[in-house]
Amino acid sequence: MMRTHYCGEVNREHLQQTVTFCGWAHRRRDHGGVIFIDLRDREGLVQVVCNPEQAETFKAAEGIRNEFVLKVTGVVRARPDGTVNTNLPTGEIEVVAQEIEVLNPSLTPPFLLDDEQLSENVRLTHRYLDLRRPVMQSNLKLRYRVAKTMRDYLDTHGFMEIETPMLTRSTPEGARDYLVPSRVHPGSFYALPQSPQLFKQLLMVAGYDRYFQITKCFRDEDLRADRQPEFTQVDIETSFMSEAEIMDMIEDMLRDMFKKVMDVDLPSPFPRMCYAEAMGRYGSDKPDMRIALEIIELTDIMRQVDFKVFREAADMEGGRVACLRVPQGGAMSRKEIDDYTDFVKIYGAKGLAYIKVNELAKGMEGLQSPILKFLTEPAVKSIIERSGASDGDLVFFGADKAKIVNEALGALRAKVGHERGFASKEWKPLWVVDFPMFELDEGNNRWQALHHPFTSPAEGHEHLLESDPGKALSKAYDIVLNGWEVGGGSVRIHRQEVQSKVFQALKISDEEAQEKFGFLLDALQYGAPPHGGLAFGLDRLVALMVGAESIRDVIAFPKTQRANDLLTQAPNVVDEAQLRELHIRLRQVDIAKS
Amino acid sequence: MMRTHYCGEVNREHLQQTVTFCGWAHRRRDHGGVIFIDLRDREGLVQVVCNPEQAETFKAAEGIRNEFVLKVTGVVRARPDGTVNTNLPTGEIEVVAQEIEVLNPSLTPPFLLDDEQLSENVRLTHRYLDLRRPVMQSNLKLRYRVAKTMRDYLDTHGFMEIETPMLTRSTPEGARDYLVPSRVHPGSFYALPQSPQLFKQLLMVAGYDRYFQITKCFRDEDLRADRQPEFTQVDIETSFMSEAEIMDMIEDMLRDMFKKVMDVDLPSPFPRMCYAEAMGRYGSDKPDMRIALEIIELTDIMRQVDFKVFREAADMEGGRVACLRVPQGGAMSRKEIDDYTDFVKIYGAKGLAYIKVNELAKGMEGLQSPILKFLTEPAVKSIIERSGASDGDLVFFGADKAKIVNEALGALRAKVGHERGFASKEWKPLWVVDFPMFELDEGNNRWQALHHPFTSPAEGHEHLLESDPGKALSKAYDIVLNGWEVGGGSVRIHRQEVQSKVFQALKISDEEAQEKFGFLLDALQYGAPPHGGLAFGLDRLVALMVGAESIRDVIAFPKTQRANDLLTQAPNVVDEAQLRELHIRLRQVDIAKS
Repeated sequence: MMRTHYCGEVNREHLQQTVTFCGWAHRRRDHGGVIFIDLRDREGLVQVVCNPEQAETFKAAEGIRNEFVLKVTGVVRARPDGTVNTNLPTGEIEVVAQEIEVLNPSLTPPFLLDDEQLSENVRLTHRYLDLRRPVMQSNLKLRYRVAKTMRDYLDTHGFMEIETPMLTRSTPEGARDYLVPSRVHPGSFYALPQSPQLFKQLLMVAGYDRYFQITKCFRDEDLRADRQPEFTQVDIETSFMSEAEIMDMIEDMLRDMFKKVMDVDLPSPFPRMCYAEAMGRYGSDKPDMRIALEIIELTDIMRQVDFKVFREAADMEGGRVACLRVPQGGAMSRKEIDDYTDFVKIYGAKGLAYIKVNELAKGMEGLQSPILKFLTEPAVKSIIERSGASDGDLVFFGADKAKIVNEALGALRAKVGHERGFASKEWKPLWVVDFPMFELDEGNNRWQALHHPFTSPAEGHEHLLESDPGKALSKAYDIVLNGWEVGGGSVRIHRQEVQSKVFQALKISDEEAQEKFGFLLDALQYGAPPHGGLAFGLDRLVALMVGAESIRDVIAFPKTQRANDLLTQAPNVVDEAQLRELHIRLRQVDIAKS
Repeated sequence: MMRTHYCGEVNREHLQQTVTFCGWAHRRRDHGGVIFIDLRDREGLVQVVCNPEQAETFKAAEGIRNEFVLKVTGVVRARPDGTVNTNLPTGEIEVVAQEIEVLNPSLTPPFLLDDEQLSENVRLTHRYLDLRRPVMQSNLKLRYRVAKTMRDYLDTHGFMEIETPMLTRSTPEGARDYLVPSRVHPGSFYALPQSPQLFKQLLMVAGYDRYFQITKCFRDEDLRADRQPEFTQVDIETSFMSEAEIMDMIEDMLRDMFKKVMDVDLPSPFPRMCYAEAMGRYGSDKPDMRIALEIIELTDIMRQVDFKVFREAADMEGGRVACLRVPQGGAMSRKEIDDYTDFVKIYGAKGLAYIKVNELAKGMEGLQSPILKFLTEPAVKSIIERSGASDGDLVFFGADKAKIVNEALGALRAKVGHERGFASKEWKPLWVVDFPMFELDEGNNRWQALHHPFTSPAEGHEHLLESDPGKALSKAYDIVLNGWEVGGGSVRIHRQEVQSKVFQALKISDEEAQEKFGFLLDALQYGAPPHGGLAFGLDRLVALMVGAESIRDVIAFPKTQRANDLLTQAPNVVDEAQLRELHIRLRQVDIAKS
């Protein structure tokens, strides 16, 4: 081996030892006729001292610039008093160089690794330099540790990793597929998988009992919301287990992983909340449970008021009136309230009514609000009572279709919570359960699957698939961590006749179902076991764990929001001959426009 | 949990215990008024006995057909004398059913799982049933165990798994790329990776020190030779290690894996042989070392003979004359020799000369061969001496370009070796080293990289890149197991000027190099460490370990040799709207022809 130790792992235990490192010159300083080199490798930094007495070594050191690759042999000694660096694990020692070999020089890098103000374009273009930054190294190490720890847990619990295909069949359902033209079959295409969903179900039908896979999935979607064209899923499926058993095991795996990777104790058990309650209290199916604010139902009360905005929303089918109390929010300025008003408009709210509670003892006089004049005293009183508002508080209102109220107040709750100090620092996982089977696609006036069409209806809800699909609940469960949906799954349908009923509810004809999912429908008829599972979005989970602003910071070679790889310049133009072999040609009109 | 035990894990230790299984009815027999069900799950079979006294259970059992999914509760008892099945781990016990629940019925499967004569088309079309067969379950379990054991080894040795992109840049070099049209960038395409080669080198430049990844790679090639469009690679790369150190570690990993997975002790160390010797003695760079036959050099001797066929090959530049002695091969019939002659013609040999050694004591009289009349007695004598032939042996000859002689005699050696009992049953790994940097592409009269253009030249061979590229050796190494190349790798070029020289030798212009590999050339200038690695073909390694006839038997959902997925019917025709979004159209002329 070239090295005896990594730079970052040498300390007082190695005093007087001769050590050899291989690494990069992170920084060079000349000080009092002595050259100091901070040598860096994967495990950290160590200070190398080059004295002029060692003439040859000193000469070598003089030629060294940032990012030169070096092999350094020297003796470990304690740093002189007053020069100890307590911020560095190796800060108590330094290494007196006896021999320095330049293994490879470096041009001057286009940016300093310490620079925290780099544009993402610069970072991604020179990703091999950006990836040298300790924060990126630490992110990718943690990502690996997360995957490894989960793999080990699943192995111990009888799961086997089985690879499913990357070149699969296109099913124009859900997101847009990435397509791959076939050379052998002119006019035909493979699709890159959006998830291994159907294959993992087939593995259960095939009797593999406990499957997992950490694998790439693909969605050709617009990338605004911190998404990537390719992302990594921790995909888990098991047979003969109930929802509750699957959830127990999954949360046990997460506890094990957080403990081992972050030394964090997640609660046991995780709280479980039904979808309806999550929407009601938090306006979201992925509430951030760190935030000590709740949305309060007012719809019933507002059916009695005259104020048109509230009354109409309360009476509307699917309407909702609700409020969010902000303790001590009375101190908010007009400007702050205006900003929150603009914020909720993003979610379709028409405005943001509020009441400031100055002094309850003064009755209506003690309140301050533009809407006060539209409300009777009893109505206001019941709002105050219901919301629990007290002196100094502010109450925000939402009144519209429930969907808009939930999204607006749900987002407002998160924003106000984080900005005004209502968020704790803990890790707060939550299971959300009892999802509806379907949601109405209002544009087409059709039911669509809230999770996916292979999700089993809840016990006893099977008959609702025909009679009242909107009321049918499913055996789906999402795992939410600090307001992020990090995983989701369900017990699947294992009986062909139930699967057919779901397709009927979704207005998927028998022919269409047979054409798209025929192999699954067939498989369900040949002894499919009860089965279910869950998938984690690994990128998002890791981003959350390291506190990254974007999932791009936990992916070694991500794409930009325009789906470009700036490092290798992909996608790129290919040879005409390649296209001809694939039996396709470009649509010139599009190219001309672009 | 629904089950208390897997079927396959119950034995005499569980006598008198009440157990619950979930599994499939593998077989049902009625015998003496009692119903026997072999219940199957991932871990094996157990015999369930249903007595008519348990009326309800018996009734349920009567309705059970093959592949029904059952939940069975019963009591474990010893099988009566004379009914013990020693072939089955559970063969000493049976379970008396107390309760049987049909979790899901099954249609009559299109084939019996025990049928060993199934066509592959039938198997792949109903893969979810085919995958229930114990041999497939055992193959995929072993595959998982191989991957897991390697992952654990690499983890222990400081490697981290880092994911590299699936949507990459097309570089029309080597095999054909699978292309993915970009929706966002009209006229541009991603390529699916043929290997993570460049990304793993960039990770070394980025200082990750020890990387691995078990990942899918893609090659759009013709599939005759048991290949798949997508295959799995165990990809390993490390910095600051020499060839010898990398090879030591890799073979240690393989020993560890074979021991843990198969309880096989591979030799320590693995033998190492240079490329030239492997070609000389075995006519192959992946010789099957189980076979106790060797090719013997005759070129030098044959420069002196008059026999035109031998003399011309010996005098030809790049020609070779060699022989293969088959101990006791004298017993071969005319028909057998003709068959071997047809066999070597596949490899371009024009014929297959031979000498049968009947009785050496009789001199030329004791030999039998159509070519004897062309050879002088001294020439024959030296052949006999060199080959070590003795009474009863047969000697085959090859005389042609070395490439043809090597391929023909190399393949003949393997065929004769296996057919005539010269192959041992051991596991025989071998490192082949000291490969040439380049081989001549005779069609274009150009050098091409024998491994890939990022392979480092051997120590001291750098100057040959310009002066005599054909003589330059590389720091490449292949790992060969029982005649299969299961892995290959090299120390890479880490200095930009060396990389440029290699591109020059390959007649890749600066512009072309910059266009295709600019990001790598750049990266090499910013402090690239010495680095190298290796990649295993996981499919082939596992196929070898389980003795599968095809890698398709160790892949859950493989493609056919026409690159079809018969289960999901991929590739398939997609909507015109999808193509329009991707800015491509079909070449109708191709479609019409197809």
